[in-house]
Amino acid sequence: MQIDNIDLQSYPGSEKVYIDGTIHAVRVAMRRINLTPTVKVEGDKKTMRENAPVYVYDTSGVYTDPDVKIDINSGLPRLREEWIARREDLEQLPEITSEYGRRRESDPSLDSIRFSHRHAPRRAKEGCAITQMDLARRGVITPEMEYVAIRENCNAQALGIDTHITPEFVRDEIAAGRAVLPANINHPEAEPMIIGRNFLVKLNTNIGNSALSSGIEEEVNKAVWSCYWGGDTLMDLSTGDNIHETREWIIRNCPVPVGTVPVYQALEKVNGRVEDLTWEIYRDTLIEQAEQGVDYFTIHAGALRAHADMIQERLTGIVSRGGSIMTRWAVIHNQENFLYTHFDEICEILARYDVAVSLGDGLRPGSIHDANDRSQFLELDVLGQLTERAWAHGVQVLIEGPGHVPMHKIRENMDRQIEKCHEAPFYTLGPLTTDIAPGYDHITSAIGAAQIAWMGTAMICYVTPKEHLALPNLEDVRNGVIAYKIAAHAADIAKGHPGATVRDDAMSASRYDFRWKDQFNLSLDPARARQYYVESHPSDDHFCTMCGPNFCAMRISQTVAHECAK
Amino acid sequence: MQIDNIDLQSYPGSEKVYIDGTIHAVRVAMRRINLTPTVKVEGDKKTMRENAPVYVYDTSGVYTDPDVKIDINSGLPRLREEWIARREDLEQLPEITSEYGRRRESDPSLDSIRFSHRHAPRRAKEGCAITQMDLARRGVITPEMEYVAIRENCNAQALGIDTHITPEFVRDEIAAGRAVLPANINHPEAEPMIIGRNFLVKLNTNIGNSALSSGIEEEVNKAVWSCYWGGDTLMDLSTGDNIHETREWIIRNCPVPVGTVPVYQALEKVNGRVEDLTWEIYRDTLIEQAEQGVDYFTIHAGALRAHADMIQERLTGIVSRGGSIMTRWAVIHNQENFLYTHFDEICEILARYDVAVSLGDGLRPGSIHDANDRSQFLELDVLGQLTERAWAHGVQVLIEGPGHVPMHKIRENMDRQIEKCHEAPFYTLGPLTTDIAPGYDHITSAIGAAQIAWMGTAMICYVTPKEHLALPNLEDVRNGVIAYKIAAHAADIAKGHPGATVRDDAMSASRYDFRWKDQFNLSLDPARARQYYVESHPSDDHFCTMCGPNFCAMRISQTVAHECAK
Repeated sequence: MQIDNIDLQSYPGSEKVYIDGTIHAVRVAMRRINLTPTVKVEGDKKTMRENAPVYVYDTSGVYTDPDVKIDINSGLPRLREEWIARREDLEQLPEITSEYGRRRESDPSLDSIRFSHRHAPRRAKEGCAITQMDLARRGVITPEMEYVAIRENCNAQALGIDTHITPEFVRDEIAAGRAVLPANINHPEAEPMIIGRNFLVKLNTNIGNSALSSGIEEEVNKAVWSCYWGGDTLMDLSTGDNIHETREWIIRNCPVPVGTVPVYQALEKVNGRVEDLTWEIYRDTLIEQAEQGVDYFTIHAGALRAHADMIQERLTGIVSRGGSIMTRWAVIHNQENFLYTHFDEICEILARYDVAVSLGDGLRPGSIHDANDRSQFLELDVLGQLTERAWAHGVQVLIEGPGHVPMHKIRENMDRQIEKCHEAPFYTLGPLTTDIAPGYDHITSAIGAAQIAWMGTAMICYVTPKEHLALPNLEDVRNGVIAYKIAAHAADIAKGHPGATVRDDAMSASRYDFRWKDQFNLSLDPARARQYYVESHPSDDHFCTMCGPNFCAMRISQTVAHECAK
Repeated sequence: MQIDNIDLQSYPGSEKVYIDGTIHAVRVAMRRINLTPTVKVEGDKKTMRENAPVYVYDTSGVYTDPDVKIDINSGLPRLREEWIARREDLEQLPEITSEYGRRRESDPSLDSIRFSHRHAPRRAKEGCAITQMDLARRGVITPEMEYVAIRENCNAQALGIDTHITPEFVRDEIAAGRAVLPANINHPEAEPMIIGRNFLVKLNTNIGNSALSSGIEEEVNKAVWSCYWGGDTLMDLSTGDNIHETREWIIRNCPVPVGTVPVYQALEKVNGRVEDLTWEIYRDTLIEQAEQGVDYFTIHAGALRAHADMIQERLTGIVSRGGSIMTRWAVIHNQENFLYTHFDEICEILARYDVAVSLGDGLRPGSIHDANDRSQFLELDVLGQLTERAWAHGVQVLIEGPGHVPMHKIRENMDRQIEKCHEAPFYTLGPLTTDIAPGYDHITSAIGAAQIAWMGTAMICYVTPKEHLALPNLEDVRNGVIAYKIAAHAADIAKGHPGATVRDDAMSASRYDFRWKDQFNLSLDPARARQYYVESHPSDDHFCTMCGPNFCAMRISQTVAHECAK
């Protein structure tokens, strides 16, 4: 198996660099964009001024490190292996615990699609509280915490300033539940990252085949591709055949935390018959996935039986797959949602692998009409209660949010979430600010995502141009990620993250200097910027086709500045 | 000459309809999207429920009316001709007044590119105050005012409700200067529209060749194309050869108001030498263009000599072409900007043709770094003074705004503009909320445009994906317009424009019903939505490739609703 159709050459003008930790032996990857000097010619005098390089947050993993040989078949280097191996609160299991997992591992008909470099899973020793939250509460600064502290300061790197984002600050935010560091002990390949409103805004990408499309290679390709463009976490939403094997390939080759919605696989195990879902099947699925290394689970434990009757008030009912499944189960059996009734047992399992829980908003609005309605906010109240229950087990918590929300109703979502969910990080899908633009929902939702991220949402889940219409291909993933990098970065600037404008300022200076190559290299998508420019330019002289030589405002402006300075 | 590469077939499922006025003999064009019925099958019982059609604002002119034969060579039907012809405050001139215009008209070498169905221009009779603002102040409801009142109610049409947007309301908003109805008496082809914060948010598109690219046919194509997708006004920013002739072709075939920046052409007349610009040349250009039918002029009268020294504080100096030209002129001659010193004479000319003035923000910030700085806001103060001077002449006023502004600095732009410019409509370029995404600036700026439009900006000037890189082609124009339709519509919803969510709700209902064709037809870009869907769907059955048959939330949700209702 190999990565196809992806040009993983490093970004032009960029270098992979590593910053060492001072507490732990961590090496934090960043991308340094080197710039060309500013050249001024006056008469026969030529002056040159160096331009400082710009450091950017790098989610692409070692795929962009020319010193690392990539082999998809053996998986990524296990960055956290040593940190984890020396922990005394963990044990290595002789084999995987899940019954279903064992069946898949021993089925010879799956040999050809199985990832073969499987490692034995780890688990917390009985009685040990091992999550990043547990450790933070005990005052420990883990290697993961130091890693993210350095990483969050990437923008300030060029400024050489100390910021308030220290390892201690990271620890305290995690201990308070205001931030999540998703780091399953069985996913040592992932580079540590943090999700919280006092950090850089993160973006999640979704991939996943359905029964009707996409194979393993294609999904691994999409995973790597989405990290390459800037995805901070990755949700594998596969629902077709071979979910177990597909997931293994993705996790072993994914440099960012991986999330799933376990009920999707549980439903496959009962052949799609909602009524046949049981707690036992679901429980085994949690263990199966936790031991593979999934870093966070979306769990729709807040969609209660009592909410089902309210969906008739809506224009678009339930649009969350997990929410609709659990609501239907509760109605059929006339029992409470088993994810709610078994929530403490769920947390006990998650705590043993440090899997974070992402509390799903099963009743998120699927239309402008349904935004901020009764059922949405009743469910949010339940998510707040579940947050405290999860925290009691040391389980890190994210809260999922909408969906489709008009601009004037966004603020209420954020304020209520902070209040009802005790400042647990909010993780929203967009929101889309209008329903009328299928084909462009990366834009309808980037508008909402930028606003809600500015207000405090910690992670925004991308939407691609194919939303509501089809599954995204590679080009759609790229367009979705870039739209969300824009929204996240716009929010980082508005929030005043340390050094957030360094890259913008470097871009602006290169524009004023007509340093075209620097402009491309500083872009979120250097290839596209260059392509658009090159297609229409006869030369990269000091003007461009937009205005022509007599109408270039920047050129005239430089002349004015020169004349005024005389 | 003919329209190339443009499929101007009416939108599928749509009909061109006309709503008659009650005060005047106006027929207001709208597009009606007809929907299919909702079909429910239970056992062998099949029920059908009709779905009301949706009316949408239509900027495409008669290009989408199958009953009108389009002939680019003779221009569009002159919709307002009768209304104008019977006015007693206007006179028909024997020939055009501008010296330059006469020279171009009599030059036989231009015969092959000249629009040949030229009409004699009209002008206000001496001493008559003829603008829509003058008439509104005198209590007159013009046909144009009734037209826009009906037009603004398009969304509410299906609801059959009366809204506060009456012809009287339109008149009062224009009289107060809070709204502009751009309607040069020499552009009778344009369908009346209104720009003001108490109306639907409008979007402007820019086209225009530069010395290095694009010809007349291509520009006319782009003009029609941008209206087809939803552009409300069109600025012709051409700077190359044959500006006069290109403009004539565009205006005669353009169903929306046309704006220009007259100093671009004035500069061409002096071969690009800023120092050679004179008031006399500029004055003749104003008359030339006013008699062709330009509906609004961008005039950079607020960029004063004193501001020039402040641009050294900036990272990107002056990025407005007009602003840089006028500042340079002022510095070279060490005199005040002649657009400022001659502003009353300018207004006297504009008032005679009812050309609106769009006061250019010559010092708009060109980077996040320069946003909301001293020079930007000092210029805004000057624009406020000029607003009152223009209003004294009965000239309608728009105020142009930035540019590049981070989200947390957008609000100050809007609030100051309303205060300093006495509520004259704000007309902003984006703003772009980050500098780092060339190739995607339709998105960086749609984020800012949606916010500032919600806060009160009346018209947003689109930005295409090629911004900062190259001139847009047809596909870029389409992407730019749709991104801005999204921003404008999101703002209309947030502002609570009457009936603004009718189309969203119809879309959502068609989603819940799996009425796929209705979903496409209700889209801002039906062709793209259908294309994305069709490319990946084996059939349009009651599920799609996104989730597969077992995981369709809406299908499960319908089952739940059905079960709960039992």
